[in-house]
Parts: sequence; C-alpha cells; structure tokens
Amino acid sequence: MERRHLLAGSAAAAALAAPNLASAQPRIRWRMPGSFPKSLDTLYGTQERICRRVGEMTDGAFQILPFGPGEVMPALSVMDGVGSGTVECGYTSAYYYLGKDPALSIATCLPFGMSSRQLWSWLQEGGGRALLADVYRDQGVMAIPAGNTGAQMGGWFRREINTVGDLNGLKFRIAGHGGAVLQKLGVVAQQIPGPDLYPALERGVIDALEWVGPYDDEKLGFQRVARFYYAPGWWEYSPSIDLMIHPAAYEALPNHYKAILEAACTEAWHWMMARYDHLNPQALRRLVAQGTQLRVFSRDILSACYRAAQDLYAEIGSSNARFRRIHAEWDKYRVEEVQWFRLAEDTQANFLGLMAQQQQR
Amino acid sequence: MERRHLLAGSAAAAALAAPNLASAQPRIRWRMPGSFPKSLDTLYGTQERICRRVGEMTDGAFQILPFGPGEVMPALSVMDGVGSGTVECGYTSAYYYLGKDPALSIATCLPFGMSSRQLWSWLQEGGGRALLADVYRDQGVMAIPAGNTGAQMGGWFRREINTVGDLNGLKFRIAGHGGAVLQKLGVVAQQIPGPDLYPALERGVIDALEWVGPYDDEKLGFQRVARFYYAPGWWEYSPSIDLMIHPAAYEALPNHYKAILEAACTEAWHWMMARYDHLNPQALRRLVAQGTQLRVFSRDILSACYRAAQDLYAEIGSSNARFRRIHAEWDKYRVEEVQWFRLAEDTQANFLGLMAQQQQR
Repeated sequence: MERRHLLAGSAAAAALAAPNLASAQPRIRWRMPGSFPKSLDTLYGTQERICRRVGEMTDGAFQILPFGPGEVMPALSVMDGVGSGTVECGYTSAYYYLGKDPALSIATCLPFGMSSRQLWSWLQEGGGRALLADVYRDQGVMAIPAGNTGAQMGGWFRREINTVGDLNGLKFRIAGHGGAVLQKLGVVAQQIPGPDLYPALERGVIDALEWVGPYDDEKLGFQRVARFYYAPGWWEYSPSIDLMIHPAAYEALPNHYKAILEAACTEAWHWMMARYDHLNPQALRRLVAQGTQLRVFSRDILSACYRAAQDLYAEIGSSNARFRRIHAEWDKYRVEEVQWFRLAEDTQANFLGLMAQQQQR
Repeated sequence: MERRHLLAGSAAAAALAAPNLASAQPRIRWRMPGSFPKSLDTLYGTQERICRRVGEMTDGAFQILPFGPGEVMPALSVMDGVGSGTVECGYTSAYYYLGKDPALSIATCLPFGMSSRQLWSWLQEGGGRALLADVYRDQGVMAIPAGNTGAQMGGWFRREINTVGDLNGLKFRIAGHGGAVLQKLGVVAQQIPGPDLYPALERGVIDALEWVGPYDDEKLGFQRVARFYYAPGWWEYSPSIDLMIHPAAYEALPNHYKAILEAACTEAWHWMMARYDHLNPQALRRLVAQGTQLRVFSRDILSACYRAAQDLYAEIGSSNARFRRIHAEWDKYRVEEVQWFRLAEDTQANFLGLMAQQQQR
C-alpha cells in the first residue's frame, strides 16, 4: 500500500515534469472594429498594435483583425456591435455612449478627473474596474483598459478668453460632459464631426474647437485658422480607451489567451501614452514656430468650470444612484491621490519646470 | 496556367487557415534572483508577478522561479550572476552597479531626472533603450525595464533643514549619485544596509536617512525615531527596475516567449507603479496621524542641489565620453518633456491640488 502510494506519487511528479510540446494553441480569429480614423497613427496605431502583439505572443494562433470606422460598422456603433455579438471585440471609448448611461463616462474620463497614473491606479488597484464592470455588463460587454492619450489641450480659439464672461455665447465645438459643464457658463456647445471641423472654424461657424493635442491637431491644420491654443483640456485630463469584448467570446478563450489579451491591452495603454509623450513636444515646438500663441485658462475660469462640473455630477447623481455611488468612490480616491502627488511628484515637476524655463531663456 | 495559378493561390490560403493545435510551446525553466527583500511586497512582489504572468501566458510551459537576496546570490551580485550566465535572468536596478560604469545610473534614475511617464517615453519611444543597450552589453547582460516606484520621498530627518547651510555636516544615509551631489554641499553621505538603518537613526549615528516612500518606510518604523519627513526625493524621481537577462538564454527563446517576456515586464513596470500609487497615500495618512511632520525642501536647497548635480554630470562626462553622450541625449529629451508637461499636465495637477487643499480644510 505504501509502495503503491509512493509509485502513484512519482507518476504524478513525472507527469508534471513531462515535456509539453503539444500544449494547446487553438487557432482563433476575431474582428476588432474601432472608433478612430486610420489617419491617427496614435489611436488607430494602438488598435493595430494590440492585434499584432496578440499574434506575436501566440505564435500567430490568435489572430485579431483591426478595422477602421465604417469598414465593419460606424465609429460610434462599436459598443453596440460588441454587445450584440456581431463582432467579438472593438476598440472604442466608453464616454461616446454616455447617452445610454452617464456612468460610462467615468470609465473614460470626467472633467477635472484623474491624471493618467492616478486613473491607472484606481482602475487596476483601487477597485475601479470592479465598480465599472456592472456598467459595462448592462451594455452587453466587458472591457479592458487599452489606451490613454494623457492630458489633452484646451483647444483652438480665434480670440482670447480672459474672463469667465468671455465664455458667454462662445460657439465651441466640444462634446460630452465637458460641453455640458461649459453650457452652464453660457457656451454654445456644438457637435461637429472631425472632417467638418477645419472649414467650420475657418468660416467662423464656430469660434473655437477642441480635438486632442499638438500631434493630432497639427495634422488637421487648425493652426492656420485659429491663433490661440489653450491649455489645459480639463475635460480630458487622461481619457482612457477600452478594448470592449463580447463576454461569450472571451469565455471561450483558453486561460493563457485571456492572460495574453490582458497583457496586450496593458502594453497598448502605455504604448499610446509613450507615443503621445514622445510626439506632442515635437509638434508643439513646430506649432509655436508657425506662430501659434499658447495660453493657459485663468484660475477664475478654471474655478468656475470646476464648480459647474461639481453641479453637473450632483444633478446626474440625483436621478442615477449607481452614477452617484461610483462617482463618490472615484472622487474619494482622486482626492487622496492628488494630495500624495502634490507632495512627492508635483513638487519635482514644478521645480524642474522652473529650471527648464530658466535654461530656455 | 491561369488555373494552376489560381489553385496554387487557394492552396496557400488553405495552409494559412489550417488549424495549428501543435504549435511549439517548449518547456523552459529559468531562475530569477533579485535584489529586493521578500518583506517588500511592492518590489519583491513585482518580481514574483513577472514569473507568475509568464507562466500564465505560456500555459505553464515557461517557468521562472523567483529568489530573494542571498538565496542564490547576494543582493548586489545579481548583475554579475546574469552576466556570467550563472542564472538566466535577475531582477535588480542598474544604478546599484554604477561603480562599474556611471552610465548604468542613467538607466535607473539620475538626480533631478525624469518623471516616470517621461522616462517610460524616453526608454520606449525616445531611443533610450537603444542608447543604453551598449552600456548593458559591456556588463554581459541585456535589460528590459520592468518596474518603477514613482517619486520617492526625501527621507526622515531628526531636525529641520531650513537652509543650504543646514546640510553642512549632516550625517545622511544616502547612496549613489544622490549622495555624491549632497557631499558637494557638506553632507556626510553614508552607506548603511537596510536592517541597520533603524538603530542607526535611533542612536543618532546618523541624522537622517532615505529609503523609499510612505508604504515601504512605514514598515521599518522610521516614524518612531525621526519627526520630519521631507519631500521630494529629487535623487529618485522615478527609479526604474530592470529584468536583466543573459543574452544567450534570451536568444534561445522562441519568438513568442520573447514577446511574452517583454509584455510581462511592461505589466510589471506599471503594476508596481499602480501598487505604490495605491498604497502610498494610505500609508502617508497613517504616518501623519502618528505625528509625522511633512516638510518640503526649500527652493534654495533644491536649486543648490540642482547646480551641484549639473557639476557632477560635467565631472563624470569629462572622463567618460559615453556617459557624456547619453546624458546629453537624455537631458535634451527631459527638457522638452518638462516643457510640454508644464503646459498640459502640471497646470491641471496644480489646480486640482489647490482644490483638494480647499476641500480638506
């Protein structure tokens, strides 16, 4: 009996140590439509990169094909397409769909929200993904954070905005909750698709617009029709992009493909950040050389917008208990992060900013 | 001819679509000694995580075993052990070995260096890894960035440091280039191993010490023997941790294992950051509740240290052309990043810092 037991033990040990050359690498093919034009090598480039990296990590066995807007479905139908199972996954941002549920915008960014590192910490370690899983589930999808642009710019203005009063009547192309905040201060918030932006600004149909940041904005040529480039884009401090996945497709994956997909999305988030951090300073330098005037919104303007944003969150929360609950958790986390960053990170950033300014002179 | 051509085309297409259930997943076992005590769930925890994730992504076929300091080799012999091929890889920081080559410290961090996001951008997109590859090669290793603590604290002081003159004669436990900078201002820089730090500070053998940040520091209990906790740790704005790999071991990996190893290291870098960003604010709150007094080095002190750091880099560069060349590239990149962050990121961080301060009152 004892001997048999020992033998059984050895056999089990031998099985564990056996070579595993035929580990299952099932061939899987997915389609990934996205919301971002192929002309944006930052955003669409990251979508392509996820597909390429999943292929590389599975020795070509798990292939995902990326598609641009309109190829498989329209740009802003991606979440619906994933939810209905028309496609297995899609690359998009949750806040495009805030009309369905305002809590979706917490997953991307809220005005005066967290920095990219703070948001990453909240999502991955602070319980953010667990809190948001419910919100996605209602839309028939699950999501992995898979991109972030970092802080965007405050947009292109044909005239200077010096006081809160200057916002009154301003025709500003700005979408989502940022637009809703500014409407409280008299801004006429407009929604205009990307391709129509340049002519609208050139002809004065709008007074101002916001797009992304120096690198993406420069391609659209806004510097030729507006002189003032404002910072910061307080409505998009660190907008996050998701890989949305149809739950049944995800569950059908072997565990190691699930692990690889998660890793490819983490790579994507931080690759996009690195691309923007690499390309934006160069583009900013070119824009300034072409005569673009940089401006920073005054503290009065920021404070008025901050208060209007808090009012907006209270309004949404008053009729939406889940938004109220998730927003409260998010905001508590955010304030603790800000207090810590203020001590250890911002003191260095500000000192080094001063030194760089002195070197520049 | 046309028909044969068509048939050939179909055959090629069929081959591409053929199931590939027996894709090669060779069993590989590596050892990974590290430089960080197992008591640090942040640093050692990340080392473990890389091993776990590589296993998960290869369905258990590529197994890496983590070891703490002294188990396979001493904490500060890891680079040598990897270089000689005693082990396949190791988890350590390049600046521990700056005595062999001062350029190794550029790979980890230099005093008044880049923020974590700036360093990540430089390493991955700004050519940093290519520039440093030579430096690692001289030590017989290659390296993948695989962790970062974010901004560390300036350390624990038994008395306040108000002027540059207060640094004179200060017995401060601080290693590496940070210590070399402070020595120029009269500090008596000391090297004391981790376990001896608490008694040294308690007995007044030293006046001050720096370790990591709130979460790791709290465990060692420094708050009980020093009252003043300074920020920022300008000598460690974003220290990077490497997975160092023996080149022949790396080259023997199939390409998809190489891709998985790279992805696991990217995950590790950002997981460590998220862990610290999640845990540090909570620990800071506890420390303050126990009576720790927070202080920020004055601008005069920071300026004097900044100038001393520039002098140090000029001295090292005068006798080391490669250090001079890489440092010049690094510094040019850094200044451009700082100027961009100052506009888009820091304006938001500072405004939100102010709002958080007002909310706190």
